Amino acid sequence: MAGRTVSNSVIRRLPRYYRFLSELRQKGTTRISSGELAAHMNLTASQIRQDLNCFGGFGQQGYGYNVDQLQYEIGRILGLDTEATAILIGAGNLGQTIATHINFKKCGFKLVAIFDQNEKIIGDTVGDLKISDMKDLSAYCRKVKPDVAIMCIPRAHAQEIVDELLACGVFGFWNFSQRDLVIEDERAHVENIRLADSLMALRYHIGK
Amino acid sequence: MAGRTVSNSVIRRLPRYYRFLSELRQKGTTRISSGELAAHMNLTASQIRQDLNCFGGFGQQGYGYNVDQLQYEIGRILGLDTEATAILIGAGNLGQTIATHINFKKCGFKLVAIFDQNEKIIGDTVGDLKISDMKDLSAYCRKVKPDVAIMCIPRAHAQEIVDELLACGVFGFWNFSQRDLVIEDERAHVENIRLADSLMALRYHIGK
Repeated sequence: MAGRTVSNSVIRRLPRYYRFLSELRQKGTTRISSGELAAHMNLTASQIRQDLNCFGGFGQQGYGYNVDQLQYEIGRILGLDTEATAILIGAGNLGQTIATHINFKKCGFKLVAIFDQNEKIIGDTVGDLKISDMKDLSAYCRKVKPDVAIMCIPRAHAQEIVDELLACGVFGFWNFSQRDLVIEDERAHVENIRLADSLMALRYHIGK
Repeated sequence: MAGRTVSNSVIRRLPRYYRFLSELRQKGTTRISSGELAAHMNLTASQIRQDLNCFGGFGQQGYGYNVDQLQYEIGRILGLDTEATAILIGAGNLGQTIATHINFKKCGFKLVAIFDQNEKIIGDTVGDLKISDMKDLSAYCRKVKPDVAIMCIPRAHAQEIVDELLACGVFGFWNFSQRDLVIEDERAHVENIRLADSLMALRYHIGK
């Protein structure tokens, strides 16, 4: 795949491009100029051109971008055209909401298993998956080799479970625990969702 | 309050400092050097000193930082020592999880009302709050002037509700909808939680 060395800030913008282009498609818009894209994204037109040049262009001078094609290409770059596998660790309130609220397919994933250590909920169904016992996590991962683990567990246990997963060959982490995970394996990648940090930053900005 | 013009990247780091210092306190650690803080935060010691100098220092040469005092001061800078008010818009799966999962007090907030347009759940209780009718949103906001609205609604309606809230004097938004909100009022501040964008970025990084 092209563009593996693209800067992280460009990659961060790709889902936003993708999302906005989806909206345009739904409205029936077939092409858009870099200027219009820029206005919506709060970027300059030249920044847009630079971003998209990282992946080989797509625009035509004086015509702008073909919305369908650009969305398709960005989706392909992100990997949304193929399904990676994800498992959910922790089926409490937050975990269950993530399992049911997120459109995994749209993000290039399939949720394939859910684990929890709480005996009271093991065997319960969330969406179309049964909650499995955490004791079976390692055996499952060595066999299935899921691409990503979604960490919806209290921070006290997050690190030890990450270490267990790394040992089983799981290298992708979508981390909702407030813990900063320590991962030295270069093959690993972590995306953090820090709800409390975000709310505290907002608390700062509203002042009072 | 000092530091209103501090750069956004410093402000983003303050909750992480705060969180790490809380962990240190729980372990009984009373002081820490900028070098140790740096190692944990994946920053350089000089960056740490620079960050904290924005707010007037706190460290002593050769001694490091007093953990209790530094945590207290960062909390005060963020505004966590006083309670701002938040209302939740949208009491579906995600909204209810946010209402019950987030420790608002710890983040300097009190959740004071929940609104939804779904007649089937209006009047139901979430945590210790009753779900109110969206029809009463404007009247409520004009009276109570909540500081922040937590947007947990589908993107189709996000913008019109934001416009309604702005007109009522609500200027803080914690936005979980996938929509990019258009807000031109300079008094407003938005913090976005983009779950799908984050998952797509992870999809990119794991490759395949």
